[in-house]
Amino acid sequence: MEQRFPKGNKPRIVIVGGGFGGIELAKKLRNKDIEVIMLDKHNYHTFQPLLYQVATGGLEADSIAFPLRKIFKGQKNLTFRVTEVKKVLPLENAIETTIGIFEYDHLVIATGSTSNFFGQDEIEHNAMPMKSIPEALNLRSLLLQNLESAQIATDKLTEAELLNFVVVGGGPTGVETSGAIAELKKHVLKNDYPELDLKKVNIFLIEGSPELLGAMSVQAQKKSEEFLSELGVTVMTNSRVQSYDGKQLILVDGRIIPTSTVIWSAGVKGVVIDGLNPQCVVRGNRVKVNEISRVDGHDNIYAIGDVAAMITEEFPNGYPGVAPAAIQQGKQLAENLINIIGNKPTEPFKYFDKGAMATVGRNRAVVDIHKVRFQGIFAWFTWMFVHLMTLVGFRNKLVVFVNWVWSYFSYDRGTRLIIRPFLRGNPEPEVVDPKPVKDEAKVN
Amino acid sequence: MEQRFPKGNKPRIVIVGGGFGGIELAKKLRNKDIEVIMLDKHNYHTFQPLLYQVATGGLEADSIAFPLRKIFKGQKNLTFRVTEVKKVLPLENAIETTIGIFEYDHLVIATGSTSNFFGQDEIEHNAMPMKSIPEALNLRSLLLQNLESAQIATDKLTEAELLNFVVVGGGPTGVETSGAIAELKKHVLKNDYPELDLKKVNIFLIEGSPELLGAMSVQAQKKSEEFLSELGVTVMTNSRVQSYDGKQLILVDGRIIPTSTVIWSAGVKGVVIDGLNPQCVVRGNRVKVNEISRVDGHDNIYAIGDVAAMITEEFPNGYPGVAPAAIQQGKQLAENLINIIGNKPTEPFKYFDKGAMATVGRNRAVVDIHKVRFQGIFAWFTWMFVHLMTLVGFRNKLVVFVNWVWSYFSYDRGTRLIIRPFLRGNPEPEVVDPKPVKDEAKVN
Repeated sequence: MEQRFPKGNKPRIVIVGGGFGGIELAKKLRNKDIEVIMLDKHNYHTFQPLLYQVATGGLEADSIAFPLRKIFKGQKNLTFRVTEVKKVLPLENAIETTIGIFEYDHLVIATGSTSNFFGQDEIEHNAMPMKSIPEALNLRSLLLQNLESAQIATDKLTEAELLNFVVVGGGPTGVETSGAIAELKKHVLKNDYPELDLKKVNIFLIEGSPELLGAMSVQAQKKSEEFLSELGVTVMTNSRVQSYDGKQLILVDGRIIPTSTVIWSAGVKGVVIDGLNPQCVVRGNRVKVNEISRVDGHDNIYAIGDVAAMITEEFPNGYPGVAPAAIQQGKQLAENLINIIGNKPTEPFKYFDKGAMATVGRNRAVVDIHKVRFQGIFAWFTWMFVHLMTLVGFRNKLVVFVNWVWSYFSYDRGTRLIIRPFLRGNPEPEVVDPKPVKDEAKVN
Repeated sequence: MEQRFPKGNKPRIVIVGGGFGGIELAKKLRNKDIEVIMLDKHNYHTFQPLLYQVATGGLEADSIAFPLRKIFKGQKNLTFRVTEVKKVLPLENAIETTIGIFEYDHLVIATGSTSNFFGQDEIEHNAMPMKSIPEALNLRSLLLQNLESAQIATDKLTEAELLNFVVVGGGPTGVETSGAIAELKKHVLKNDYPELDLKKVNIFLIEGSPELLGAMSVQAQKKSEEFLSELGVTVMTNSRVQSYDGKQLILVDGRIIPTSTVIWSAGVKGVVIDGLNPQCVVRGNRVKVNEISRVDGHDNIYAIGDVAAMITEEFPNGYPGVAPAAIQQGKQLAENLINIIGNKPTEPFKYFDKGAMATVGRNRAVVDIHKVRFQGIFAWFTWMFVHLMTLVGFRNKLVVFVNWVWSYFSYDRGTRLIIRPFLRGNPEPEVVDPKPVKDEAKVN
């Protein structure tokens, strides 16, 4: 029989997901007369903007993750549980998880987004996503294993497959990832693989539209393409992927790239929980919410961050899936939930756009802050400063800073270790099974 | 058909294993007119003395590992390959691996040691070893998962199983691991798990002989036991394990400890390669070698480090399995191989004992340097200094130093993340399969 976690006397808010939005919301409920329960399938918060540096060996995974329990240290009204959510039971005001059923007064869905393969199963099976730490580590292992395998390849086609690295999607993640691989080639491979002919190592960035960084200014778009070319990345705009079988990437116009590494950053989709009103799911698998983040068709269910589509005239598909939007929604929803519980009027959400930035490589970044636009070394320092400040935890800031200073002066990347070998078709177990291990021992 | 890597004109030395001994040997062959091939199943060197800190969340895995390719950067006569060795073919002067057959003039086995369960399969299946980075990370995940599971345990026996942590074996690893778990309990758990009754968390250290740290002085033995008791570890000497089924640890005298976490540090055995003269394998699964590290019954096969048993009057089971012995043997063997290739006489190995040390916790360590023996805070600083200096790579020294300073002042441990969930009976794939990934894609 499933364990049940019944409500007490205080109003209970259950938050699903410990990303930027969920954390901000939970923190703002500190010291309120409200019971807060946070559920996440991991016991840590992931700083997604730096996942690409973990994948390319620049940072250790532990540096960009932070234990959720530590974030809420001393917050007496909050209970944290590692579990995976199965479905919402709106009629019961309860949510079913792998460890039991939690009742709620208000439910907040802050589950974020995952890679969107747009229904192309073959690509999904063969390309590498990079939206979580285990995925970034898998990608790191694959990159390094391919380099090792290329040392002993006996035919040219196999060698080409191993040494062609393709990034699909020219948004910030795609630009940053292809730039980082190019720097790995430039500074690290010549030392690590003296027998390797570096001319055989090719990095491709494929983008369907006519320009990179579609959401940024024309200056930023032009300059990022220029920076990538300087680093030796082959930028292919107006190019769409037809199919990928793990060996050959075929473009819609018929061009073929032999490659065993395709990194997918071409789109994301919301992680929706089963049991919601089906009409609320809109474009991008996001959940349609009103101006106070309430999900369409529900009275006491809310969604914030990447999974939420708060549709406005300016943003007909909802606000962009970036950390500031999630944080602002989390903060506003906390205030509104306090108001709702206290029978006070709510305030509609207002988005404050903080601008956008992307880094291509050493001394090369692009920054748009409204009308202020700059590129190059100052933009690069700005990018580093903003990312360091946004990282959760002083230890993480310190360790990332030490690593970046070290890499800057040594032209090196510290952590190119194949710690868990990557096996295609054998991804990490997605769920931390919270049953006592003794029971698992029986199953296995 | 298996790929063959034939010898060229120069004499070729194949070294299996990139531990302390193998690295020292290979480095000393730099700039010699000799072809050196190093084979290892990982692409990194592991600093084993700090594995317990990775397992207990004090250090990140990347901080105590170092890319082997980087260690040999610029060493033109060395080729490195990631592969697993299958067997020696002494009659062919060749060694078979997962990527093909390597011919050699001289073969050096520096494969180290692994956990010894003394043939007790049930214990081997259920207890946690800690001899490699993936094993240490598995253990970290298990410790943290058990704490999460204990939050929702509904019966007292399950709770006891999850919160009793047992370390078997009172050598340096066992002492250091049980001390580290005790500090985790003392400084971290009370903040991370405010609902948890810390009195329910118990740490046991089980040792078969009458004292801990059998190889050290009586002062060190007494003091380490005192330090552990201060930290709240239940030290059980004169206690032997009868069986462990994943839930109950039963001692020979009939006592039972309910526990789902048994960390095995009760013994090691050499990792011997198939195909050697069977008579050469002696106690502890080590390979018997003569005074120049040559394996009994072979002309051009050598063994150094943990896997080698160089039997002397003072050391009837061979030298202790510690880093200094391996490094000294590697250095001496390099000189002797150069002499053998140059038709010069060889020199017998002489062991220089550098003493022994173990740390129990903050400000608590024991050090024996021959007749000089000290314990406490100065010993603790000595232990940290020696370990920092022995770590390979400046970046690693820096990151470990930053982490230790941070932990000292914050009483915190940075990296308690369940990055890859531990599933019993589902250990890491042991081999980095060096076949091109496209072939694996077919298999899966």
